Amino acid sequence: MSAPREPRPSTLAQSLDTIRTIAWMKETARQARAESRVIGFVPTMGALHAGHLSLVERARRDCDPVIASIFVNPKQFGPKEDFAKYPRTLEKDAAKLAAAGVGALFLPEAAEMYPAGFATYVNVEGLSERLEGRTRPGHFCGVTTVVLKLLEIVQPTFAYFGRKDAQQARLITIMARDLNLDTQIVLGPIVREGDGLAMSSRNAYLSAEERRAAAVVQRALAAAGDEVRAGVRDVLRLQEAMQRVLAAEPLARVDYAEIVDAATFEPVLRVARPAYVLLAAYLGRTRLIDNMFIEPVAEGADEFAIQL
Amino acid sequence: MSAPREPRPSTLAQSLDTIRTIAWMKETARQARAESRVIGFVPTMGALHAGHLSLVERARRDCDPVIASIFVNPKQFGPKEDFAKYPRTLEKDAAKLAAAGVGALFLPEAAEMYPAGFATYVNVEGLSERLEGRTRPGHFCGVTTVVLKLLEIVQPTFAYFGRKDAQQARLITIMARDLNLDTQIVLGPIVREGDGLAMSSRNAYLSAEERRAAAVVQRALAAAGDEVRAGVRDVLRLQEAMQRVLAAEPLARVDYAEIVDAATFEPVLRVARPAYVLLAAYLGRTRLIDNMFIEPVAEGADEFAIQL
Repeated sequence: MSAPREPRPSTLAQSLDTIRTIAWMKETARQARAESRVIGFVPTMGALHAGHLSLVERARRDCDPVIASIFVNPKQFGPKEDFAKYPRTLEKDAAKLAAAGVGALFLPEAAEMYPAGFATYVNVEGLSERLEGRTRPGHFCGVTTVVLKLLEIVQPTFAYFGRKDAQQARLITIMARDLNLDTQIVLGPIVREGDGLAMSSRNAYLSAEERRAAAVVQRALAAAGDEVRAGVRDVLRLQEAMQRVLAAEPLARVDYAEIVDAATFEPVLRVARPAYVLLAAYLGRTRLIDNMFIEPVAEGADEFAIQL
Repeated sequence: MSAPREPRPSTLAQSLDTIRTIAWMKETARQARAESRVIGFVPTMGALHAGHLSLVERARRDCDPVIASIFVNPKQFGPKEDFAKYPRTLEKDAAKLAAAGVGALFLPEAAEMYPAGFATYVNVEGLSERLEGRTRPGHFCGVTTVVLKLLEIVQPTFAYFGRKDAQQARLITIMARDLNLDTQIVLGPIVREGDGLAMSSRNAYLSAEERRAAAVVQRALAAAGDEVRAGVRDVLRLQEAMQRVLAAEPLARVDYAEIVDAATFEPVLRVARPAYVLLAAYLGRTRLIDNMFIEPVAEGADEFAIQL
């Protein structure tokens, strides 16, 4: 099959190939695979921050080339969600990706990804309906569908996702396992602002006052972490510790504060195995999520390592 | 990644590698791709007949190696359907595939394809709920899910499906397009018994009396074909022609007799573009399907070519 060569490779930033068609993205990736190169892939919705760039950096250590994508995926936004106003900062994003050593940027239009008659959806049953999925029905079906398409197009050896979206990362890992994909899903750590707020493209929606208040989310997780370090294993007590911190911030309204098994994302009553402490809260009209990963320092140990 | 070599390659038939694990099937296919060989893939549920073997023959013309699979997929059977009694004739199947020049037979257990915790399903919305999907809810979701898994495991250049299951073939083609798979879906013609009955593994369920009566299904399609040849374009008249033939056979009970656009599978009122005449009927408790493909001999022509 001969792929249509893009008539004039558009360059948003020097040294960065910008690819707008699926056919040419496939051909570019195929050439890299034919040269036995290890492709690392960092899919994003743009509005890039240091969290995204840490994924690129990690990919650069393992792979050459690193391919990134920017696609604000309409299928993962609900009808009342922020698709139209989601921040779009393409010129700046391209410059950041070029500086970070990304070799090719895949930048498809919605009509390229979802042409007329598009009808195929992939869904991870169960987990995709809980937690974030309960507040955002259909969201994760949109996420897994677009990620599967992107993985089929690029066929990377490694694909990188941020741990801030822990449930999303778990769903994608389950999908890749269940569908026997060759791609390894790699999680990067949460990158935080100076006051502890997890970096997110949606932080741009916060007013100055909300922005100051938003650090409460990470402080609540940290309070639960302190309890774990002090020997608390009971989930209700950890939730109380978070609620105490959150209640002191009048601008914050909790959506959920759950502690779940790291593999199944089922709620646990006591912390014993690797677990996520998941927090979702509204600051004004902006919904923020954050989490903390805790795991025994050794199999069966009662001391926990904490990643916030 | 090093795949676990299967400890002792089991050979059901001489010259036919029988592969039971996903890891080893992936490794075998990867080696073929690394040698730039063109993989043809024929997925089946076993109980092989001349229809299956015609797909293998077609694959042999285009590809080397040809890989077949036999997997009676539990996910595509409803709770009241015939999963347990679906015919299983493995030794004979392996001999037929070896004789037909298949190089490797993928023969996974259900627990290998669907280990505990399996949760990911792919669905083509709309079409999968109509026609066969209305009588068999969930059937096509099971089909597209297993076919996607098999295509991910084997990653063939061409995959071959029989036209008897026209709606299934269309759904798989849509799925492959929507998910940007590299595999080309190829349709093989319907192979028929001497009296015109379309070959099907389920014909084995028919009593001698039902078996004699079953040829009515193809005769009904042929009657509609005669009308098309005589210039009839009105779908109601074509349906009447089929019903007249079917009504004369007391052992047959029609489930549906529809004429649909070949691309969308939406019902049409007049035959003008490529279309399928689809027939589903019960002979006793056995449900049989069959179809006829009709298309203008040239773009816009009013003369039709008929494939029965």
